Amino acid sequence: MSMTVSEKILARASGKDRVEAGEIVMADIDVAMTHDLTGPLSVESFRAIGEDRVWDPEKIVVIFDHQVPADSIEAAQNHMIMRDFVEEQGIRNFYDVREGVCHQVLPEKGHVVPGEVVVGTDSHTCTHGALGAFATGIGSTDMAMVFATGKLWFRVPETLRFDVRGKLREHVYAKDVILNIIGRVGADGATYMACEFAGETVAEMSVSDRMVLSNMAIEMGGKTGIVEPDEKTLNYVRRRSGKPWRVFKTDPDAPSLSVMEVDVSDLEPQVACPHNVDNVKPVTEVEGTEIDQVFLGSCTNGRLSDLRDAAAILKNRKVSDSVRMLVIPASREVYRRALDEGLIEIFVDAGALVCNPCCGPCLGGHVGLVGPGEVSLSTSNRNFRGRQGSPEAEVYLSSAAVAAASAVNGSITHPGSLK
Amino acid sequence: MSMTVSEKILARASGKDRVEAGEIVMADIDVAMTHDLTGPLSVESFRAIGEDRVWDPEKIVVIFDHQVPADSIEAAQNHMIMRDFVEEQGIRNFYDVREGVCHQVLPEKGHVVPGEVVVGTDSHTCTHGALGAFATGIGSTDMAMVFATGKLWFRVPETLRFDVRGKLREHVYAKDVILNIIGRVGADGATYMACEFAGETVAEMSVSDRMVLSNMAIEMGGKTGIVEPDEKTLNYVRRRSGKPWRVFKTDPDAPSLSVMEVDVSDLEPQVACPHNVDNVKPVTEVEGTEIDQVFLGSCTNGRLSDLRDAAAILKNRKVSDSVRMLVIPASREVYRRALDEGLIEIFVDAGALVCNPCCGPCLGGHVGLVGPGEVSLSTSNRNFRGRQGSPEAEVYLSSAAVAAASAVNGSITHPGSLK
Repeated sequence: MSMTVSEKILARASGKDRVEAGEIVMADIDVAMTHDLTGPLSVESFRAIGEDRVWDPEKIVVIFDHQVPADSIEAAQNHMIMRDFVEEQGIRNFYDVREGVCHQVLPEKGHVVPGEVVVGTDSHTCTHGALGAFATGIGSTDMAMVFATGKLWFRVPETLRFDVRGKLREHVYAKDVILNIIGRVGADGATYMACEFAGETVAEMSVSDRMVLSNMAIEMGGKTGIVEPDEKTLNYVRRRSGKPWRVFKTDPDAPSLSVMEVDVSDLEPQVACPHNVDNVKPVTEVEGTEIDQVFLGSCTNGRLSDLRDAAAILKNRKVSDSVRMLVIPASREVYRRALDEGLIEIFVDAGALVCNPCCGPCLGGHVGLVGPGEVSLSTSNRNFRGRQGSPEAEVYLSSAAVAAASAVNGSITHPGSLK
Repeated sequence: MSMTVSEKILARASGKDRVEAGEIVMADIDVAMTHDLTGPLSVESFRAIGEDRVWDPEKIVVIFDHQVPADSIEAAQNHMIMRDFVEEQGIRNFYDVREGVCHQVLPEKGHVVPGEVVVGTDSHTCTHGALGAFATGIGSTDMAMVFATGKLWFRVPETLRFDVRGKLREHVYAKDVILNIIGRVGADGATYMACEFAGETVAEMSVSDRMVLSNMAIEMGGKTGIVEPDEKTLNYVRRRSGKPWRVFKTDPDAPSLSVMEVDVSDLEPQVACPHNVDNVKPVTEVEGTEIDQVFLGSCTNGRLSDLRDAAAILKNRKVSDSVRMLVIPASREVYRRALDEGLIEIFVDAGALVCNPCCGPCLGGHVGLVGPGEVSLSTSNRNFRGRQGSPEAEVYLSSAAVAAASAVNGSITHPGSLK
């Protein structure tokens, strides 16, 4: 029977020749990730089950990224709970406060390869689908069951494939593509579906760009966001992982497959407006909107290519005095390479504030929050009311290029219209 | 009549030919500094007085350093209160979230010159005495009066001069000198006195090193910590300030002057042990004490020279896996110069976490807090119970060199004994 890539992975992981959309399967988990914010509840739930040992410490990754370094005694205690757990269970794949955002660090460190089932106690775990894995966010109590058994049940999702065609114009990036898609489909337009990103435009994209697409699949309700592995994927994985991989591809005649054609050849930079990710407009429609803070970072757009794009705009320019610009590299590796390339100097000289790799204001509970009435322009993935601090603040979402251009002008700006 | 440098400054500022220790004077304020944590209460108190305009916006400096970027909605609101005040009052000397720690930024930006009276709503305002100013911390309500009138009353302090002699041995720094002095004098040994740092050892020190001494005068109860200006002071000030200065020196026969001789020629690195700054021991007595976190930074030891000292130790070495090391440059300038010199790369490669310029965990209310039972080794100035997070944590204080060496070993270490 013809299957989609998601179905093939879930079939493999549940020891079956074939699965069908709608079916419930019990799948073996290849990678189980948890972080400092959701980890303690996972551990508490695991202990409540009465288990002593996790099923396989080698398949668990623990990373601190949401509140690093600890910004409260409670956060410090959460870290201590997780450090104790890691030591007690012999979990070697442990990244303390210094490494960066989970969804950037796991691929960088080779923890994810094509064909795997990856679960994480974070809704943006779908990011890892960019490497051809079936990756999805789960709850902390579900993670307790994974810790105990190494398995989790899934309802096999239908697949919605976005067939993206056309060459992106100057100043247009993967972020604009996914914002445009979400704007068209709506925040619940792909609920529990496997979103698959394909087509010539995606084939042209780097793995980093594909991660932008996969990262935001959840913002239209997707169970995962997946890209079929190709040579770019394998080149990325070969350099970073010693794990074996399996390349699965979608059969075009798979019964559960539906396809949406997306032509991006005329796309202009997009902005998601308050207070929903699907409230998407071309940047020109909101140009001139005054902003108080710009956040360049997160698991969506805190990668080296984003920092390069922003630095190209900020070089020999200044951040407006009316704006705070926060640059938060997504990982220690990104920060280290940005140092090497002189990007950090450019940000500092432009007047941006460079913070340590972490989730930053994205989650609304750590550094860089905005107050009532303030307006944030952010390269992250969510603009829900209160997402970056005060519920009376407004959050706009954009690419790194729009963020940098807007920081210069103090208002939302098309990079091409910058003087 | 013979006077000390502090008396001469207070006499000048209160329009008198002479003042005597114990006398109450009403002094004109040259620099009034407030920050994001204490500023809002100063503003609230100022408004309560019923004044509309500050006495002189050019003499007020507002800087955000304690909670930057904002780590809570409340912090974001504090920032908003201060931004509004700055705009309303036409205060041009305003540094938003990006600039660094007040006591580093004010001298860097030329806001402090010899002979001035400097007040700030922060206990470590005494730091600025290193430039030959009379500088002291005041309360937020006192600051409201300064905002309104430009004046504040002082009881003229007696002066306790530390005549420091002897050449510092290898691995011994200004921090060790001041810790040793505080250990001898006690936390209340110089209560309300003007601590004056003099002698051949201080003459040899850079302005940055002298700031370490002045910074910690408050830790033995001092009203200020002052160093007579010399050519080094004036060279520093000439490069940075357009303000006129006045050089005052202490008359050796000033009636209020008492002198304590301090010979540092045999001094070894010092550590202040929990939970008081005067609980000072030679590092060898506590060597091997296991630590969980190292904090390199603060208005005491977050300067370029500290980063250089630490980087010299960390180059081609690794921070122990059992330790988180936080490097928090004291200012944007320090960070920028550390970038230039390749120090940041050294820290990242060693496994340290480099954060944005700010007060960090020093104040116990922002990033880098420690949990119950954890041990912090810190280059900052206070180790009171709960100072860096949990009241059940322990904080040790040391120089940057001891901090770096200890980070490598995971336990308190004499830099000279590092393999």
